[in-house]
Amino acid sequence: MQTVLNEILHTCKEETTRGAVANYIPELAKADPNQLGICLVDADGKSVCAGDWSHCFSMQSVVKPLILLLALQDSGVDAVRALVGMEATGKPFDAFNYSDQALTGAHINPMINTGAIALCTLIGGSDYEEKFQRLLQLAGKLSGNPSMDILESVYLSEKATGNKNRALAYMLRAYGMVNDPAEDIIDCYFKACSIGVSCMDLARIAAVFAGHGLDPVTGQRLMDAEYARYVNATLATCGMYDGSGEFALKVGIPAKSGVGGGIMGVVPKKMGIGVFAPALDKKGNSVAGFKVLELLSRQLDLSVY
Amino acid sequence: MQTVLNEILHTCKEETTRGAVANYIPELAKADPNQLGICLVDADGKSVCAGDWSHCFSMQSVVKPLILLLALQDSGVDAVRALVGMEATGKPFDAFNYSDQALTGAHINPMINTGAIALCTLIGGSDYEEKFQRLLQLAGKLSGNPSMDILESVYLSEKATGNKNRALAYMLRAYGMVNDPAEDIIDCYFKACSIGVSCMDLARIAAVFAGHGLDPVTGQRLMDAEYARYVNATLATCGMYDGSGEFALKVGIPAKSGVGGGIMGVVPKKMGIGVFAPALDKKGNSVAGFKVLELLSRQLDLSVY
Amino acid sequence: MQTVLNEILHTCKEETTRGAVANYIPELAKADPNQLGICLVDADGKSVCAGDWSHCFSMQSVVKPLILLLALQDSGVDAVRALVGMEATGKPFDAFNYSDQALTGAHINPMINTGAIALCTLIGGSDYEEKFQRLLQLAGKLSGNPSMDILESVYLSEKATGNKNRALAYMLRAYGMVNDPAEDIIDCYFKACSIGVSCMDLARIAAVFAGHGLDPVTGQRLMDAEYARYVNATLATCGMYDGSGEFALKVGIPAKSGVGGGIMGVVPKKMGIGVFAPALDKKGNSVAGFKVLELLSRQLDLSVY
Amino acid sequence: MQTVLNEILHTCKEETTRGAVANYIPELAKADPNQLGICLVDADGKSVCAGDWSHCFSMQSVVKPLILLLALQDSGVDAVRALVGMEATGKPFDAFNYSDQALTGAHINPMINTGAIALCTLIGGSDYEEKFQRLLQLAGKLSGNPSMDILESVYLSEKATGNKNRALAYMLRAYGMVNDPAEDIIDCYFKACSIGVSCMDLARIAAVFAGHGLDPVTGQRLMDAEYARYVNATLATCGMYDGSGEFALKVGIPAKSGVGGGIMGVVPKKMGIGVFAPALDKKGNSVAGFKVLELLSRQLDLSVY
Repeated sequence: MQTVLNEILHTCKEETTRGAVANYIPELAKADPNQLGICLVDADGKSVCAGDWSHCFSMQSVVKPLILLLALQDSGVDAVRALVGMEATGKPFDAFNYSDQALTGAHINPMINTGAIALCTLIGGSDYEEKFQRLLQLAGKLSGNPSMDILESVYLSEKATGNKNRALAYMLRAYGMVNDPAEDIIDCYFKACSIGVSCMDLARIAAVFAGHGLDPVTGQRLMDAEYARYVNATLATCGMYDGSGEFALKVGIPAKSGVGGGIMGVVPKKMGIGVFAPALDKKGNSVAGFKVLELLSRQLDLSVY
Repeated sequence: MQTVLNEILHTCKEETTRGAVANYIPELAKADPNQLGICLVDADGKSVCAGDWSHCFSMQSVVKPLILLLALQDSGVDAVRALVGMEATGKPFDAFNYSDQALTGAHINPMINTGAIALCTLIGGSDYEEKFQRLLQLAGKLSGNPSMDILESVYLSEKATGNKNRALAYMLRAYGMVNDPAEDIIDCYFKACSIGVSCMDLARIAAVFAGHGLDPVTGQRLMDAEYARYVNATLATCGMYDGSGEFALKVGIPAKSGVGGGIMGVVPKKMGIGVFAPALDKKGNSVAGFKVLELLSRQLDLSVY
Repeated sequence: MQTVLNEILHTCKEETTRGAVANYIPELAKADPNQLGICLVDADGKSVCAGDWSHCFSMQSVVKPLILLLALQDSGVDAVRALVGMEATGKPFDAFNYSDQALTGAHINPMINTGAIALCTLIGGSDYEEKFQRLLQLAGKLSGNPSMDILESVYLSEKATGNKNRALAYMLRAYGMVNDPAEDIIDCYFKACSIGVSCMDLARIAAVFAGHGLDPVTGQRLMDAEYARYVNATLATCGMYDGSGEFALKVGIPAKSGVGGGIMGVVPKKMGIGVFAPALDKKGNSVAGFKVLELLSRQLDLSVY
Repeated sequence: MQTVLNEILHTCKEETTRGAVANYIPELAKADPNQLGICLVDADGKSVCAGDWSHCFSMQSVVKPLILLLALQDSGVDAVRALVGMEATGKPFDAFNYSDQALTGAHINPMINTGAIALCTLIGGSDYEEKFQRLLQLAGKLSGNPSMDILESVYLSEKATGNKNRALAYMLRAYGMVNDPAEDIIDCYFKACSIGVSCMDLARIAAVFAGHGLDPVTGQRLMDAEYARYVNATLATCGMYDGSGEFALKVGIPAKSGVGGGIMGVVPKKMGIGVFAPALDKKGNSVAGFKVLELLSRQLDLSVY
């Protein structure tokens, strides 16, 4: 397996020259596009890694499955479904163009910005600092890395320049979909996006989702199987934004990408995968990361379809 | 003429029971729906009034033509045209659903919220407080009412609850259409909407636009003819939002409505009209005010078409 | 006046090199882009012409005001308003992107293709051949040119290649907005677009609308004043498609353009204007024709705003 | 297994009273909403059936995966990808509202009407009758039912009333996405939708897709594994229209529904499923059929997520 990973890493290294590092947040623009890391954690809890697998980068949208999970755990399926839908939107991750008729929960997906921002309100906690701390603890627990924390410079950069997300938060307020102050909600969301992780962290988290809630490393149940399946299904249809169909075709693994360059892949009952390569395609997915997952899926027959 | 106005007022009084007072801002919801005021100022500067013509209400969107005018005066036609377009949008006044392709100046009209917010940036002034003061002075000068000021309670109410407008401002920032802090711009816009006026004030302002810049009361030139025509044409195609076509058909006068219940009507070369009645139709236009203008237009043959 | 026209013709001649002749119908692509014609008919019925004013070209969308007028005359205002709206759509003339919520009469304008096709059903007649003949007679009557007829080659070209209009007709059928066979309706519409006219014809027709129904040449009443105003108001807000706002600003005359290169301008109570120059801008309006009207409006102070 | 099926049939029978039989085509409106049939074909080629499993109904949109497959086989992946995309659209199956920017292959999915109509052009054959016959033969081969044929009354009903699909075909022509006569293409599509099948037929076809091209009954390879995976992935993201996300969550099986009441479910490497119950939910999916698949998935642990 280590040989397979090394070969794939070698093959995909040249893909790191394609695409472009995210530049909508100054801090992300500093990423080194040459980096490429991979980590797998299988159903027995064994891990294999290659390349820059230990490099720390910000989760960005890879945190969305965790926000969804925590909202499910803290508020239940009904509350989640009342606030957000399940359908792919056919639109970019930060799309604005909701008509008045379409700005209802049914048209908002937890894997796009509007939906994830809205779901922050369903995380338990007396204030948004507590909500965020609970999310951070969840991430630490699932990854087996309790020292996980936000990358302060990314957070400040998000906070200073994240006008589109701020606009989405005010829109949700204006339409009565959330009731808390937009600034509080968006601050929690910015912090969540700024959590620092490595490929190993992502692979460990993914492995728990793949195990339908059982951590293959510790044998502990960390979430209900029902919630794990909920998240996995959501990843399958919308985790790669409006590239989810293409990804289903070429990779066939429920997965979530982030503009930090990370992708978390969940192979149900088999494996968790973490990949990192910061240069993105036009839809906001890591170019080399996508390629790594495509080759992995083909060589290890991982597609669920 | 006084008799004509009295009769129209009497006829339209029953229309005040239709529609509903704006409730998106708590302070507006306190308006008395039974009020109805009319004021005309003709090309000789003579005024005729009826009903609650001296009642003070907030300009709301009726301030948009003044924002456009001041942006034209301070930054010129080219800068205005680079930032906003001229076309009716076919959408409600606070529409959100811009696709990424459509969020360009060409698709933003100065008479809808997005356009008016954007144009605040083109008003001269070293900060947004100064920009607002210059707008207030312009309103005072055009209306011949230098003591005009904001209605503090309306302003605070806007500021506390105007999440949709705040969202639009952040959207403009996110798309690089404005460069100043969204909170500063929107604060200026909230203040502008909160300026207190009477029907007499609106009729006086309208009379200057009707005179293509010459104030019929003082004989002074208060704006370039070119700018007056610019504003009048914009009112004709988009002043009544997505009710502008209906208004052109039934009234045929360039006009601007506001959710405070005011409508300012400009009859080029003939007359300025101010009407006030707070209950609105679904498109945000005063029901009784619309009817008053319809009857006035028919009886005095005011339609320009 | 002849001198004014000659000068304007001379000035605008160079504008004929800008834009491009319509190419979506092969027959239109054969037009000579160097042609430029102007004709005015004033309130006394006197006409002044310049350039290629007698050249015969197809009406294309300039026929839309006549379809609207005949629908009003034959079926009345209520039936027309039940089928189509009054608002500018903010979209191109052949726009498709109606959401299911928006595909209602309120969102269809008589001056865009969907609306005009729908209105063919409200023209009186036992079949669509008779409906078309009545439309042709109306055009002949208003223009004082009873020998007016369709340009067969244009009609056949439309019929062979007008897939977008055919799609719109089937869409109207699918949504239950029209009940007659789509092929019959669209054939009538194709014929209507193919009627051959000259600038003189357009100016004569426009002069009747300008006279609110009175033909300034014969003194005859040819339509109700109410219907003339209805059409004029519609032209003002949507006659130049999504260039109507720009046109209101620069010209300020209710007008209708067609992709054949013609523009019909209505100056209420004053004048009818016909212009012809086949090269179009991106919105489908004659480039040189637009310029002619802009100069005419400025020199003769024709803007209604 | 037979007991499991019988119990599920019994439980879901009451679901047949919910939803409504399709009424957009008169012939479909005649369906008996009380019917409910199930058939499974496993990886060993063994079948189990229950209820109205042998009843013959029209495929409708269940034919879309076969059109996609045949287009892939006859024209190759590149041609298919040049014409249609892979992404879920977030819109109803017969959606119209493509903006001019969005009417490109990338925004058209093979599982919605526009995409399936377009793909008919990539089926091999010298004319559209031959194209259809090849599609019919493919359906017969995959289902092991060579006597399969169109239901004439359904076809004639589609042909007479399918105005929305006809409009889509003309739209594709107008945008240059297809070059053949719209009437020919749409006739082929209407015939394809009218092919009569039973649950057994659907289960057999699904079993071949589940076997990645190997027919579990005959052991024959009937399609390339690559194409089977292509179709399965497409079904997973868009097979249940804008209910695909909900279906992924509750069922987790690549599937395709049709307004005739059929659903074909593909459990990769395990099983093909055919279900039939004519009453539909608002998104056009069989209500009882959806429930059957939900219970089957839960009891047999069939979800791929």
